[in-house]
Parts: sequence; C-alpha cells; structure tokens
Amino acid sequence: MRAVRLNKYDTTPELVDVAEPAIESPLDVIVRIGGAGVCRTDLHIIEGQWEEKSGVELPYTLGHENAGWVHAVGSAVSNVSVGDPVILHPLATCGLCRACRDGDDVHCVNSAFPGIDSDGGYADLLRTNARAVVKLDPKLAPADVAALADAGLTAYHAARKAAKVLRPGEKVVVIGAGGLGHIGIQALKALTPAQLIVIDRSKAALALAKELGAEYTVPADGDHVDAVLELTGGEGAEAVVDFVGEGGAVEDGIAVLRRAGNYYVVGYGGNLVVPTIDVISTEINFIGNLVGSYNDLAELMVLAAQGKVTLHTSTYPLADYAKALEDLDRGHVRGRAILVP
Amino acid sequence: MRAVRLNKYDTTPELVDVAEPAIESPLDVIVRIGGAGVCRTDLHIIEGQWEEKSGVELPYTLGHENAGWVHAVGSAVSNVSVGDPVILHPLATCGLCRACRDGDDVHCVNSAFPGIDSDGGYADLLRTNARAVVKLDPKLAPADVAALADAGLTAYHAARKAAKVLRPGEKVVVIGAGGLGHIGIQALKALTPAQLIVIDRSKAALALAKELGAEYTVPADGDHVDAVLELTGGEGAEAVVDFVGEGGAVEDGIAVLRRAGNYYVVGYGGNLVVPTIDVISTEINFIGNLVGSYNDLAELMVLAAQGKVTLHTSTYPLADYAKALEDLDRGHVRGRAILVP
Amino acid sequence: MRAVRLNKYDTTPELVDVAEPAIESPLDVIVRIGGAGVCRTDLHIIEGQWEEKSGVELPYTLGHENAGWVHAVGSAVSNVSVGDPVILHPLATCGLCRACRDGDDVHCVNSAFPGIDSDGGYADLLRTNARAVVKLDPKLAPADVAALADAGLTAYHAARKAAKVLRPGEKVVVIGAGGLGHIGIQALKALTPAQLIVIDRSKAALALAKELGAEYTVPADGDHVDAVLELTGGEGAEAVVDFVGEGGAVEDGIAVLRRAGNYYVVGYGGNLVVPTIDVISTEINFIGNLVGSYNDLAELMVLAAQGKVTLHTSTYPLADYAKALEDLDRGHVRGRAILVP
Amino acid sequence: MRAVRLNKYDTTPELVDVAEPAIESPLDVIVRIGGAGVCRTDLHIIEGQWEEKSGVELPYTLGHENAGWVHAVGSAVSNVSVGDPVILHPLATCGLCRACRDGDDVHCVNSAFPGIDSDGGYADLLRTNARAVVKLDPKLAPADVAALADAGLTAYHAARKAAKVLRPGEKVVVIGAGGLGHIGIQALKALTPAQLIVIDRSKAALALAKELGAEYTVPADGDHVDAVLELTGGEGAEAVVDFVGEGGAVEDGIAVLRRAGNYYVVGYGGNLVVPTIDVISTEINFIGNLVGSYNDLAELMVLAAQGKVTLHTSTYPLADYAKALEDLDRGHVRGRAILVP
Repeated sequence: MRAVRLNKYDTTPELVDVAEPAIESPLDVIVRIGGAGVCRTDLHIIEGQWEEKSGVELPYTLGHENAGWVHAVGSAVSNVSVGDPVILHPLATCGLCRACRDGDDVHCVNSAFPGIDSDGGYADLLRTNARAVVKLDPKLAPADVAALADAGLTAYHAARKAAKVLRPGEKVVVIGAGGLGHIGIQALKALTPAQLIVIDRSKAALALAKELGAEYTVPADGDHVDAVLELTGGEGAEAVVDFVGEGGAVEDGIAVLRRAGNYYVVGYGGNLVVPTIDVISTEINFIGNLVGSYNDLAELMVLAAQGKVTLHTSTYPLADYAKALEDLDRGHVRGRAILVP
Repeated sequence: MRAVRLNKYDTTPELVDVAEPAIESPLDVIVRIGGAGVCRTDLHIIEGQWEEKSGVELPYTLGHENAGWVHAVGSAVSNVSVGDPVILHPLATCGLCRACRDGDDVHCVNSAFPGIDSDGGYADLLRTNARAVVKLDPKLAPADVAALADAGLTAYHAARKAAKVLRPGEKVVVIGAGGLGHIGIQALKALTPAQLIVIDRSKAALALAKELGAEYTVPADGDHVDAVLELTGGEGAEAVVDFVGEGGAVEDGIAVLRRAGNYYVVGYGGNLVVPTIDVISTEINFIGNLVGSYNDLAELMVLAAQGKVTLHTSTYPLADYAKALEDLDRGHVRGRAILVP
Repeated sequence: MRAVRLNKYDTTPELVDVAEPAIESPLDVIVRIGGAGVCRTDLHIIEGQWEEKSGVELPYTLGHENAGWVHAVGSAVSNVSVGDPVILHPLATCGLCRACRDGDDVHCVNSAFPGIDSDGGYADLLRTNARAVVKLDPKLAPADVAALADAGLTAYHAARKAAKVLRPGEKVVVIGAGGLGHIGIQALKALTPAQLIVIDRSKAALALAKELGAEYTVPADGDHVDAVLELTGGEGAEAVVDFVGEGGAVEDGIAVLRRAGNYYVVGYGGNLVVPTIDVISTEINFIGNLVGSYNDLAELMVLAAQGKVTLHTSTYPLADYAKALEDLDRGHVRGRAILVP
Repeated sequence: MRAVRLNKYDTTPELVDVAEPAIESPLDVIVRIGGAGVCRTDLHIIEGQWEEKSGVELPYTLGHENAGWVHAVGSAVSNVSVGDPVILHPLATCGLCRACRDGDDVHCVNSAFPGIDSDGGYADLLRTNARAVVKLDPKLAPADVAALADAGLTAYHAARKAAKVLRPGEKVVVIGAGGLGHIGIQALKALTPAQLIVIDRSKAALALAKELGAEYTVPADGDHVDAVLELTGGEGAEAVVDFVGEGGAVEDGIAVLRRAGNYYVVGYGGNLVVPTIDVISTEINFIGNLVGSYNDLAELMVLAAQGKVTLHTSTYPLADYAKALEDLDRGHVRGRAILVP
C-alpha cells in the first residue's frame, strides 16, 4: 500500500510502497483511510521537534487525525464490523488501567499514538485498536470530519470543562478563532448559555466567529484588554479559553479574567507566569487541557451529525501531500487540509 | 475602651483609649474580644506593605483573627444574641450580591475587612455584622480558636477543595507544616481518605505533622523531590497543597504533581512560572485559594468542637501586644500568638 | 390602596381598600405591582387546601407571582433603588441561615412567602425584602415576566439540575408541555445539548413544544411509552422531567427512564410508587424539585432578556380578578393570566 | 476440578467433578479460588427467584463473591500475571461501551456475571476476564476479602456517593448494621466527616456499629424515628443510607430525612411509596445504588489494606458448602461465610 513516510528529520517525507499492516493483537482494528488531517504538528515532527518526546524510530508514516472505514478486525473486537465508517480517537488505549476505567483514557498508562509514535494515517491503511474507533453517523463522510479527531477534540474537551460551570448571564472569552478556536466556539455555543467574546488578530477569523454565533468579537489590536473589560463591566469574564497560549495571550487572558474565574489553557508555546499572590487574592484557577476522551469524541460526532459543529476543509489527493504541507506552512490552506488516499 | 492602633507605618502601634464602637446599621454586631490572633500579616501591615491594597486611613486598630462574645446587636440581627460566644468570619459581607447568594461570600462585592480596612480586634470591642458571626460550641473558648478565623479558615478551604476529588489510594503532598499547614493537615485527615506526604524544612514541624496523622514526612533538604517521587511510584501525587508559595516551593511542587493532578496555591510570595506546554501535556490544574466562606468556618468549628482540629497557642495580655509582635517577628512564638484583652 | 383579599374559604375574594404596607424592618422593600400571575394554586387556596399548611390568618391578600417597581426601601437596602423595575423571588429569606449562605435559599429556615402566608400581589403595593428583588433588564416589562417568578422559576430550577448531567447524544423526556412544561422546554433548550421528547395529551401543547424546539413530540394516547422506547432504541431516556406528577405520569415516566437515569419530580398530586428492587437493579434516581433560588431567578431573567424564554400571557385589570380566576378554573385562559393594577 | 453445581431449583446443589475452564478469548483470566462468599442471594437462586432474571441454564456453578490467584491468562491480558493474588469484580465487562468508558462499568451493555448467569466460584477454578481482576496487596488474603467483592462493594459504592455531599456537622442515618451495613459504616467513617446514627433491631449489630465508630446507635424498637429526630434537632438527617429496604425501613427512613436530603436505596424487598407532593415540598432525592465499579473495588481494597475496612468471616471447606448454606439460612453464621477450596 502507499504511505507517506518520514525518513530523516528536516527532509520532505516520501510517498512509498510498504507492506499493509496486519492484525497482531485480538483487539486490533485496521482502518482504510478516508481522510487524514494535515496539522501544524506534522511540520514540527518533520523539523525534529518531537524526536525526543515521541521516541519514534524513522522511517515511519505521518498522520494523527484520521477517519475512514473498518478494513479488518481482531478476534476480540465486538464494537465495529468491517465496512463501518469510523473516526479514530488519537490514542489506542489499554482499557485496563485506572485512568481508562475512569473515563479519563487520555491518561492511559499504556497507549499508542499512531502518527506520533507509530505509523499514522498518511497511507491507505492504518492499524489502531477497538478502543479507538468511533462509529460515524451515515450523514458524516470520513474526509469531512477527520480533522475533528485531534484538533477538534481538544477544543471540545476544553469547552466541555468550561460548560460545567458557565451559567446564563456569564461571559467567556475565547482567545483565538483559528483551527481549534472555531471548533471551540461552536462547542461552547452548543454546550453553554454563556455569551462569547472572541479575540483574534484576523478580521476573517472574527467574521467567522460572528457567523458561528459569538456575541462579541474584539480585534487583538492592543486595546483588546480594555475592550473586554468594558464588555464585562470592568470585572472581567467568568472564563477564558485560550487557544493561543503564547505571544502575550496568557498575560492578556489573565487581565480579562474575573475574580474566582477559570482560565483554560489549550494553546501552548509561551509561559504561564503569574505571581502567587495574584492567584490567591483573586482565587483564580488555571485548568490544563489535553485532547478529549473517546466519549468526548463520540459526543463531538453527535454535534457534527446534528450540524452544530462544522469544519471547513480543503482536500488533497494523498500523492499531493507535499503541496498540502507546503500550503500549510505558508498559511495558504483554507480551513484544514485533508489528505484523501 | 483600649485599642492597639497603628498611627504611622514603620512604627510600633500604640495602646490608646478610644470611643467604643456603636451600632450604626441594623445588621451590625459588636463583639467583646476574647482573643485576637497576631499574624504575620500584621507585621506586613505595620511595614506598609498593605497601604495601597487596603486603602485604610491611619490611625486604625489592628487585628483580623477574632473571637469573643456578642456585646450588642442591631435591630435586624436574628442569628445571635448578646452573650453568645462567637468566632468572626474575617469579612463582613452584604448578603445581597450574587457571590454572597452562591455560598461564595469571600467574593462579596460589598464587604468590609476589620483589622485590614477598618478597625480590628486588638481592642476590647469590635464592630462587624450579623453575616460574620459564627456561634461557638460551649466547649470552645474564644481565645483558643481565634486564630482559626483567618489562617485556619484558609487552610480548611483549600483542604475542602482537595477533598472533593481525593480518593482512597491517592496521595496528597502538603508543602509547609507551619501555621496554616498544620491546620491543613488536620483538615485533610478529617475530610479525605488520601495519604499525606508532608514536606518542611523544620524537624519539629515534621514531627508535629507525623503526630497529626501524616503518613509520610519528608525534610526539605534538597532531595525531597526525589523522595516524594519514590513514595509515589515515580508518578507524583494526585494533589499538592502548597502553603509556602515561594522560595522554590512552587517548582518543587510541580515536580511532584502527577499527570491530571491538582495544585492548590495557598501560600504566596513567589511566582508561578510554568511553560504552557507542560500545563497541557500533563493536563494539570492550578487552583487558587483565598480564605473560606462563612459556612466553611462553621464546618471548621464543628471539627474543632469534635477535637479533630486543634491549634497550639501562646496567649499575651492585650497590653503586651508589642512583645507578641516582636516574638512573632523573631520566630519565638510557639504555635499562634493570641492577644487577650 | 386596592387589594384582592380572601375573607373566607370557599368564597370569592373581594376587592377592598386597605392601608398601604409600610417599611417595618431595615431590609424591607415595598413594590408597586406591575403584574401578578393568577395561578392554579390561588384556586386551591380559595378552596382551603392550603389552610393548614400555610397557617395564614384571613383576611389576607392573594398573589404569589409578582413583578413591578420599587416603591420604598428600608434603611439597610443597598441593592435596589426606588423606581427600579423588579421581579420578586417568591420567598423573602433571612440571608443568615446555612441554607441561605449556601445558595439554597429556598430552604431558608426563616422566610416569608407573600401571597401564601402573608399579603401578596393582587394589590397596588406589596411588601417583601431586599433578598427577594431581582432587578429587571429594561427590555422586560413587569407584567410580561411576573408569571416566571414562581411557575417559571420552578421549571428552570429542574431544567438546571438536569442540565448538569445531560450531554450531546442523550435524550430527555418532558412530561407535560403546559404552564411549567413550556418554560421547562425553553430552559432545557437553552442549557443542554440533549434532545427533547415531549409528551402531552393536548395537540396544541405539542405544537407549541415543537415550535419551542423540541426534537420529538409524542401524544399521550396510550401508546406513548412504546413510542418513547422506540425513539430511544428500547433503552429509555437518560432523564425524565415530570411536570405532571399524577394520573399515570409517574408510572409512564419510570417506564421510559434508562438505566442509571434521573427522574426529576416537579408536578405533584399522585404517588411515587416503585419497588426498591427496581430502584437498585437499574440504579435510577428520583430528584425532588421545589422553586429555584434567587440566583436561578436572576439567570432566568437573563434568558428572558435574551429572548430565549418567553411566556404567553393574557392580562386583566386588577378589578377583573374574579373573571381571571373563573377563566383559569374553566380552562379559558390563553397562556398565563396576569392581573395588572 | 471440583464445583458446587445447582442441578434443579429447590434442591441442594451437588459437589461434582467437572472439566476445568479454559481460556476462550484473549482477555480471559482463569482464577484459582482462594475464597468464595456464601450470600443470601445464593439461597434465593436455589429457590428459583433468579431463574427468569438471570436466564441461566442449569446445571451451573454458584458463587459470585470471589478472590484467589491468577491461574492462566489470555493472550491480550496485560494487567495481571499468573500467581497474582486477586479479588474479582462481580462483572466481566466489555471495556468498549459508553458506560465502561465512563467509569460506570456496572452498566456495561455486554457483561457476564459469574455465579449468577455463568459458572461461579464455588469451585477450584473460575473464568472471568482481565477487566474484572483487581490485584491484591500482599497483606490481604483472598479468603479474608472475598465477601467484599459484591456485598462490600455495594456498601462502599453507596457510601462513596453519600460522601460527595456530606460535610462536617452533618449527620447520616444508616439503616441496618448487618452484612452490608457494617461495611457501609466503615466506608462512611473512612470517607466522610459526618456523624453516623445507626438503626438496627439487633443489639449485637448496634454494639458492632459503635465499635466501628458510629457516633450514635438507635435500637429499631418502634421509637427510633422519634429518637433520630431528637438527635437531629427535629430536622432529620442530611442523608439516609438504607441497607434494608423493606419491612417499614423506607417509611422510617423518609421520616428521618431532612429537607433537601438524600435517601440512598441499597437494600431491597419492599416498595418506595411517597406522595409526589412530599418529594417536591421538601425537595428530597432518592438515589439508587447497585454494586460499585472496578475502581470502587480497587479503592475498597486500599481501605482494606490500610485496615480501615475489616470483615468478620467464618470459613468452611468447599466440601462443607451445604452446611454453610444451611447455617446462613438459619442465621447461624458469624460475619460472612466463606468457602475455601
């Protein structure tokens, strides 16, 4: 089968012919890829930034946002059948550790992460396991939702945490209305009665935010902290969901957080720096957010099937992977780039 | 009546004769002081560190940890009667704002803080309001519990948050077994089934922690991070309650926090500095903690009456306030210093 | 001033001239009535059903769903000013007991209930206290929202509890789309991502439910249990909100509740009868619901101001109170009847 | 191997020689039984009460409270090894359904229940799966803890739910201090700061409750409702955990439940009958309780290893199963009867 493999860091991956993956364990599931998201993390992997963290051995196949159809199943798989359309939770988890048993499978102590530490979905076929496959509603095409598997799931997970405490009359500031942010906005609209204030540097992003239902949009033009404070009666917002996490976003986010408010850290890159006296005197919280659980992904697929969460995508044939990566790097992709084998 | 008043920053307060406080509003309560805690914050106030923050006008009377007996009540006070022994929640809150109505009275938008922004309890009498007075069990003497009003309440509040998520088999690291920490240890023992690992520089503090029920004590001797990691199977603890908040405590605390763990910030002074990628990749949370609510204080008094939380105190006659402050400054106080008028 | 007073049970109340209420306590608030809801409970009061329960002494003024404008305030009132448009929480609570301090003011141990145990709002003026008045958004006219003060608040309170656990892909059955139910439907739509299945005997009620956003409507025609089971894959719904509570509704509701589901009891009249083995073998819960808290009412007013919750009303001049009561008794009122002084 | 099998309802099971169970699926685990609890449910099974509910085909092997050592494992089992001492969660769950993934594995849609619907632990060996085996601390002998697998787990599960809301100063009424109740008492003491009021007909049971830490014990002698009301200032307790569920227990339990209180239904047999007006006017809740989750069982084993939960047992050789069943039926067993192969 075809696969786009990284042979050496800092070089373009190559499209090669490799052996098809085989069922090796009773819970294995092999998926025929219908769409694989091209993500900024892929660029970072190529640059070698993940070399130490993932410990993956080259060459290997990229692609960690995948959806498709079940191609083969191991003997112990009971939840999907060959032919079922599925989206793949990024982690293939064990189902036996305390975290998995607690609905917190992202902290599984024994998981694999195809596309990061093992062969991913820039290929015709990919091997994961039964605990990773979410059956898709017939309305949803794999290529249309693939990018929800990781980026979308992370945004949904943070929105779901925020939704647990937000009530009518409260406001939530969303920093960044890009790839993750525009999913986060839709998830917040679907899950909470709070009003949204969206900050972004891009006018197009703010226009999209408005279209998706944000009550207020604020250009990140230097006056945005004051603008948000004015929108919140000088008190700040009950919650901040920060999809940026660098370049001043954290400082600004803290400046617009109300006493006893929650700051959801999603984007990363910069540092969280705050005097402990400020943390305690206003009694604010900083909540970390990784990708969501399998059940989170299943819920996100419900919202997608109900039309409450949609994603803009640009599809590329698998063979055009290099162009997709280049377009992404140059900021030329509209929405999310998807490779279709 | 007598009152210890601060006339000028950076000078010793003076014991003077002043007019007795009078009922000014229907919800006012005047309390005859039975004990007033002498707190490190008082030293900071004298040094002028709180000048800007509190906005108080000099001269005024110090003392923000107070207990005693009801001396007079306003016309609308229905919850206490003259003669009742009471401990005072540090804030006199309004009872009308959203925070007060939500059990979150610490974030009242219209509160007074006797001893900080108005006359406090280093005196024969003090004025607060009906929303601040917690009736004491007859077993409890005001002078014995006064220091639980602020320091103890803060520790209890953090312990209570941690208790919401701690389960059997989990571990909580307590950083600092001093004034707040030793109350925190007792509160955690009373509220949670988790095991405690206590870190402190002082052998005496660790001995006390052990006596109060801590399962493990670790001297802060430079190897303590490794020691805690070893006690937690290399994974870190599910929770850290940090009563220090400066001098390397935060860095150490983060180093011993498990994935998906909660870090309760109580002590302050230093900065919380952490790369956002570490916050999200381990999905940890930082939870701010201010003083507890009125109901928290009522619960703490239940634990005190049940003998589950006790406090070591050294009492001084009111006239010896200068010696109490000096002893505190020099580290010569055993337990908490209490002024008794 | 004018007031509609009940002189004797089982007789029509009379419109008489009485002394205006005066400020008696520092937290008192006197409200000029803009609208008073006419409720089925008023009919029951007249019939004497509440005689023992309320312990009220006749004659007294009816009317427990009130909104209007602040007419006078006591000396300790800081949250409203004369002229402010307000809706009244049904209870005037103390603000000092543990329940009030916990955001659970409905269980206040020292409250008054104007219209039930003291003079109500079928009058020009009514006395309540500062803890009961919610300031209205200028967009909202008192007469338009008065009926949300009790009936609407109860429905919102139940919806809010259900919303804490409902997630995308789950279903909630609403039994009864009448006075409370149609508010409950709007609140559930505003607060949860779950899909609604509404059961009612009336076609008009089901048509309204559909219009308000219910995904599925099921006529209570004898086949409704089967119909709901079919809509839920034979498993039943994750939640049932029962606004009827009599005449077979409870039995039907339990029959369509999924394992581990929550049954919210709002309507009343019949008995809850269920074998304990059924409660434990399916691990279902029955959740009681009284009127909501002050903060619930404030949130409901936010939804009303945002247009997310609306109410159909028919207004009557105060002098036509007898006709309003008669129309209600005969089922001739469209929406809720409101007396306007 | 030896197995005690039920051949026909209403006859004594027989000890026979049967083929050893074999690994049939990759996640299967075969356990050498160290102890199997003899439970009242076994008597009911023999009487045929579970015939329809379980759908089991005779003959089959009894025994649903099991602990022992891992004897063999399937190819996909990674959490235990041959020789490990283990206690068995009663259900062998799938790990793939939404409930399993939510930490709510008791509501697994695809589980087996050895001893109820398939061969159980009155035998030398038993087959379950990897998701059911909890590794034991070396301090714990399988025969000593076996009865915690079902009865103990149910009691712990209810205690854990109650512990989520109980605070210092609150009281919980425990109805029944027998097999489940005495575990429930220990779990409540370990998990909550509330005070316990235990009701039982047996003086010996109340003496044990006292020894285990119950603050108050009340004989069920007809005056117990009044006695509990007196202990709770006439208001009733914040929680009732009912381990009886029949013979007047439910009526009494409701009578001693405070406004806004929670009633945990654990024991069964009778009916829950309560007017809906009482449910709503006091806003009480009825919470169903089935056996706990795998993680609950792991937590209970922590408490057992810490000595916080202990169980009185009487052991019988497997061959004496008939005597154990007879002793149980006649009420002659001290603590729980355990068969040891």
